[in-house]
Amino acid sequence: MRTVSVTGIGMTKFGKHDRSIKSLGVEACREALRDAGQPKIDAIFVGNFMGGSLARQEILGSMLASELGLGAIPSAKMEGACASGGIAFRQAYQLITAGIYDRVLVVGVEKMTLAGTEAVTHAINTAMDNDSNEGPAGLTFPGFFGIVANRYFYETGAHREHLAMVAMKNRQYARNNQKAQFQKETSMEEILQARMICDPLGLFDCSPITDGAAAVVLSAKEEGVQVLASGQASGPPLMQEIPELLTISATVEAARQAYAQAGLGPEDIDVLELHDCFSMTELLAIEDLGFFEKGSGWQAVEQGLTQHGGKIPVNTSGGLLSRGHPIGATGVAQIIQIVSQLRGTASNQVPGARIGMAQNLGGTGAYSVVHLFAGKGV
Amino acid sequence: MRTVSVTGIGMTKFGKHDRSIKSLGVEACREALRDAGQPKIDAIFVGNFMGGSLARQEILGSMLASELGLGAIPSAKMEGACASGGIAFRQAYQLITAGIYDRVLVVGVEKMTLAGTEAVTHAINTAMDNDSNEGPAGLTFPGFFGIVANRYFYETGAHREHLAMVAMKNRQYARNNQKAQFQKETSMEEILQARMICDPLGLFDCSPITDGAAAVVLSAKEEGVQVLASGQASGPPLMQEIPELLTISATVEAARQAYAQAGLGPEDIDVLELHDCFSMTELLAIEDLGFFEKGSGWQAVEQGLTQHGGKIPVNTSGGLLSRGHPIGATGVAQIIQIVSQLRGTASNQVPGARIGMAQNLGGTGAYSVVHLFAGKGV
Repeated sequence: MRTVSVTGIGMTKFGKHDRSIKSLGVEACREALRDAGQPKIDAIFVGNFMGGSLARQEILGSMLASELGLGAIPSAKMEGACASGGIAFRQAYQLITAGIYDRVLVVGVEKMTLAGTEAVTHAINTAMDNDSNEGPAGLTFPGFFGIVANRYFYETGAHREHLAMVAMKNRQYARNNQKAQFQKETSMEEILQARMICDPLGLFDCSPITDGAAAVVLSAKEEGVQVLASGQASGPPLMQEIPELLTISATVEAARQAYAQAGLGPEDIDVLELHDCFSMTELLAIEDLGFFEKGSGWQAVEQGLTQHGGKIPVNTSGGLLSRGHPIGATGVAQIIQIVSQLRGTASNQVPGARIGMAQNLGGTGAYSVVHLFAGKGV
Repeated sequence: MRTVSVTGIGMTKFGKHDRSIKSLGVEACREALRDAGQPKIDAIFVGNFMGGSLARQEILGSMLASELGLGAIPSAKMEGACASGGIAFRQAYQLITAGIYDRVLVVGVEKMTLAGTEAVTHAINTAMDNDSNEGPAGLTFPGFFGIVANRYFYETGAHREHLAMVAMKNRQYARNNQKAQFQKETSMEEILQARMICDPLGLFDCSPITDGAAAVVLSAKEEGVQVLASGQASGPPLMQEIPELLTISATVEAARQAYAQAGLGPEDIDVLELHDCFSMTELLAIEDLGFFEKGSGWQAVEQGLTQHGGKIPVNTSGGLLSRGHPIGATGVAQIIQIVSQLRGTASNQVPGARIGMAQNLGGTGAYSVVHLFAGKGV
């Protein structure tokens, strides 16, 4: 298998944009292509979830190939709910390792803010198995992760303040990230007293509604930041089919694959972007990825082990909670933060970071994708 | 590159189904898995276009993996409008040739009939570039291909009867296909006197609104029907950017790639399924794929050259026009007809067919995918 490197990165600011999903994708792609030195591109893959239902726009692959002047190259959109960006990246990576393409442009994009909260909630619920009773009975994503949080509290002794600590950390990281949706100073009191979305998840425990795009160029080269491994797994899309409510099995399996491919373990990772769609989800992920024992993530957070100077700095971009969560773009934006960390140019740079991980979740555990990266000279 | 074969096929009847998109996908997959001898599957890729906007259901990859008991395997949906099925097939083919997976289940699926014609028209229009004036000004897919037909008449001397001959041929082929949406005997008079959809395209010149699913198992084996080549190209998604209105450049380029990979030409092909979303589109495709000179397809149809006993039997399944067009399923259903022809078990079997082609179009030329297949012992 050939070595694959990330040779270009680009992203829009995340937040509210009064322009089309196409124009967001174009901006991120142009920046990534410039950063990569304007190489010839062999294919373009788009990570996007709700283009059809919210932005009323599909065929993003062909539209971007045409608008960017890339010629008649193959293009497609990949969908795996909130893991769409990570899945698009993985497809590109695999096809380059195999020698089928030399350079692929991967862009994640979503346009959500124009549609209104109710439309967004309905569209996001297409990431549940609606053949079952759960979605039709009124379960939403905050509902699911609220249930998980209450169970986590019951089993571990954690409480709402631990969720708030996660939210606070990511809020603080986002203050230094010019591309993040939120840069406002926020106090612990504000977080704890914010309006309840779904008990025990308050406003700051939930990722926001966001527009944005993120793009990378992947190349068959041994330069820049190398992709060391790719893991992907599926899991039960229904709560009633999850054997252990506090374990996202797809994340455990995707991480196992990635660690095995790279011959590495959690102790080798210097910096981590993970899928904090809710503060609670970050607690599960630091456990499922093997950084902390099951049921102990909240103590690690309390001890500051997921920040600079701790065992593993997590979501130095601000995460989904504060950088924002334009769904299809998220998986690619996570990778951009890790690439920036390994280039030594990140917001909230982790000094000497050499190996990084990005983990992207879809649905309530329907998909998980894990990638490992190494900086130059590792 | 490893040899890849289609070792299992399965599909639902195409038509109106009063059940969920998931259950359609499950039925087609179970049949394909049985036909392949229940092999262990390494990944599942889903071709689907409007799951989010019409069926309110995404995450089909994970849902099907779970429901079929395939374990934690990687899964994703691929979207390229009406070419979604062909694109999903291509991704699976490429990853198996590369040695990344040994066996991949590919399923195309769409659920359209419950939504009503207006909702379907709006959803299909997400396959236009809606940043431009064309869609917002009222252009629809029948509108686009109606304009193309009028221009074709003007430039070549063809007239409405030639479109009707295409519709009639596909109608007659569908009569023998138990999985087709329409098996009713239809006269030339009915076709020509049917209600006008968009001048000069009457009701029978337009593919119908359809529910259905089609699935294949792809394996790294030299048995059954082999995949000889895969071509894919993008083209301008806007009418105003098409250099020659009567040429779909993505189809020309995808065919060029496939012929080059296989070392074959149109003269080697024994049977062809192509993307007749409208009768007019079939005329363009038989020219763009190299079977007949540009501007002469209508004469070939008049002479019966696209039927049994002619130069190249086209759409022996009944095509999109009469087998039906559940959008995401279409590309896979085309491949199933070609595989059946090369197995010698097809409806409207072409005697001694050894090499077959399937061509799947997305948008008004935004995507085109061409695959070539060979029967046993070729």
